[in-house]
Amino acid sequence: VVQPTDPGLSPLDVRRLRARVQVVLDEVLDHQRRLLDEVGADTLPLVDAVGELVAGGKRLRPAFCYWGWAGAGGPDGDLILRVAASLELFQAAALLHDDVMDRSDTRRGRASMHRAFAEAHAARGWEGDADQFGHAAAILAGDLCLSWSDEVFAGALAECGSAAGVDADRRRAGTRLFDRMRTQLMAGQYLDVLAQASRGRHDHLEPVEVARRVIRFKSAKYTVEHPLLIGGTLAGAPDAVLRAYSGYGLALGEAFQLRDDVLGVFGDPAETGKPAGDDLREGKQTVLVALALRRADDVQRALLTQGLGSPDLDGAGVAALREVFEATGALAETERRITEQVRRARAALEAADLPGEAAGVLLDLVQTATARTA
Amino acid sequence: VVQPTDPGLSPLDVRRLRARVQVVLDEVLDHQRRLLDEVGADTLPLVDAVGELVAGGKRLRPAFCYWGWAGAGGPDGDLILRVAASLELFQAAALLHDDVMDRSDTRRGRASMHRAFAEAHAARGWEGDADQFGHAAAILAGDLCLSWSDEVFAGALAECGSAAGVDADRRRAGTRLFDRMRTQLMAGQYLDVLAQASRGRHDHLEPVEVARRVIRFKSAKYTVEHPLLIGGTLAGAPDAVLRAYSGYGLALGEAFQLRDDVLGVFGDPAETGKPAGDDLREGKQTVLVALALRRADDVQRALLTQGLGSPDLDGAGVAALREVFEATGALAETERRITEQVRRARAALEAADLPGEAAGVLLDLVQTATARTA
Repeated sequence: VVQPTDPGLSPLDVRRLRARVQVVLDEVLDHQRRLLDEVGADTLPLVDAVGELVAGGKRLRPAFCYWGWAGAGGPDGDLILRVAASLELFQAAALLHDDVMDRSDTRRGRASMHRAFAEAHAARGWEGDADQFGHAAAILAGDLCLSWSDEVFAGALAECGSAAGVDADRRRAGTRLFDRMRTQLMAGQYLDVLAQASRGRHDHLEPVEVARRVIRFKSAKYTVEHPLLIGGTLAGAPDAVLRAYSGYGLALGEAFQLRDDVLGVFGDPAETGKPAGDDLREGKQTVLVALALRRADDVQRALLTQGLGSPDLDGAGVAALREVFEATGALAETERRITEQVRRARAALEAADLPGEAAGVLLDLVQTATARTA
Repeated sequence: VVQPTDPGLSPLDVRRLRARVQVVLDEVLDHQRRLLDEVGADTLPLVDAVGELVAGGKRLRPAFCYWGWAGAGGPDGDLILRVAASLELFQAAALLHDDVMDRSDTRRGRASMHRAFAEAHAARGWEGDADQFGHAAAILAGDLCLSWSDEVFAGALAECGSAAGVDADRRRAGTRLFDRMRTQLMAGQYLDVLAQASRGRHDHLEPVEVARRVIRFKSAKYTVEHPLLIGGTLAGAPDAVLRAYSGYGLALGEAFQLRDDVLGVFGDPAETGKPAGDDLREGKQTVLVALALRRADDVQRALLTQGLGSPDLDGAGVAALREVFEATGALAETERRITEQVRRARAALEAADLPGEAAGVLLDLVQTATARTA
């Protein structure tokens, strides 16, 4: 039976992973700062903004990547730390562009980058539209993070691959997964945007199924399965381990996103760093929302239809919608689904027969990803 | 003395380069279409939109990359065609994001992607803001092109590098240039956005110098120098050839962008595919604009200050500004600078002592890039 690790230590900090990934990120940003300085010192705020964003990350994807590698016998060292850091840069790109696409004003309890740059524009009395300037800065910062992510990933394989025992075949297989992760995340994001625009009515699928498909590609594969598989594949994991990683990853990834959806509606702003009800104002087509719509009576449906996606939904409106999620049983059903996916993730892990430390951390990460409040 | 090639053939079509790059692009998009189809058939319009965009490209960057390779003795074949195609995908990403940042409605004579998707949203009566939906689609399509560009570049080196005689050192050097190109283009784009917002008054530089610095990083290095250097470096060109490529590339790249700036104000919309005066309405801080401002009297300065960046500048307003560019001598001075840079590009090419066909095509490309009307 898999044993949890030291209860006093976050599983994200075992082997000082978070701190060591930060060291890699600092080195990457220092290198890039020199390239931007050649273009002009006034471009450096882009690097600073990226640095602030990545400093606040939970580092879930690096953790899954690292323990996918370690679980398949990969040695601790530069290669996997740099690969793990590349995933954090990719996540930064996704967040920067996501916030522009959603017009989100906050991220991790601070102004989102496009907001911060729009405010700087306004404060200086510059020409043109401040929001448009903020969008441009955040789009370009996201593009930089996308490039840097790939640069760090490919550079790690080219420079440290041989020393870490990763031969050309494994490099190619790992790169294929990295490429697939990127393409399918972006397609998943588009599916999400499309679901909001069409209110989940597109493609002849039932809305709960549309929302689950968005979760699968936008969250489960990207946050858990692909990072695990990239680490495992680079370490040469046998097929049975990779299958277990997929089973664990897809189940845990779904549970992770369902928890995110619940927090988006019921979370405490002081802990989530996001204003209460932001997901509701954005009109996110989550499984929680789709379940509530499926079970709503006429009055409840009218409340949902009016409130969701309404930018001026106030505190009372948010409270009324919370009641609908409870009264329809959509909240309870979502919690039931989280519990079921957590059970499946644990079962897949038990079956995988990984080394003790990796198995223990991956077990603890189930808790971290699904029992959180922020 | 370098001889031009067959006058009946565009230098872009020597060795059927444009058609052969298109074949690679079609294969790439077919592969990606399968990955998106796994996510959902309703994401496929993203691939179709990218396909339409790249089909209309001039293929200048692939040409410079190919002839930089061929000029250094690189053999014709899959490696360089795929590397050349990767640059066209990178350019597609830059255009997609540029049009969102500039809020440009047209590209290559058609609706820009974000406009086309906004119109589809409106036509279907979908929820939410149509423009925001269009922006999201174009941001994600640009992100896809960025990933695919890198996937094609790295894949070409990994799969065809050895067969084409490109060893690990050259691969690393070529990849470093590719990475530098991406980072410095994006920083150059930010510099451009910043110059528009601050009207060229930032960073204690004289406005004409700010505009030249934008040209250098946003255009000269990216369009000509880096593609040439990537091709040359992969082929193992000696330092003297790489220096000649830089001299030719920076001079021709500056002339190319100055021609673009002149066409942005004086070009025929039927040929450029852009409405007359779009650059003026966007308030682009070009060298042409900075020269006019430097030489303007009070009346002319007032016309420029009011008209530049004004979204409702009409045909009469555009005509009045054209007169200012002529009367101040800014147009003549820009043409003089184009002529001077063309002379330098040719001189660098003469000094490089390249094989006849490559030298001839690169000579013809000077004409293509600077004497064009579209």
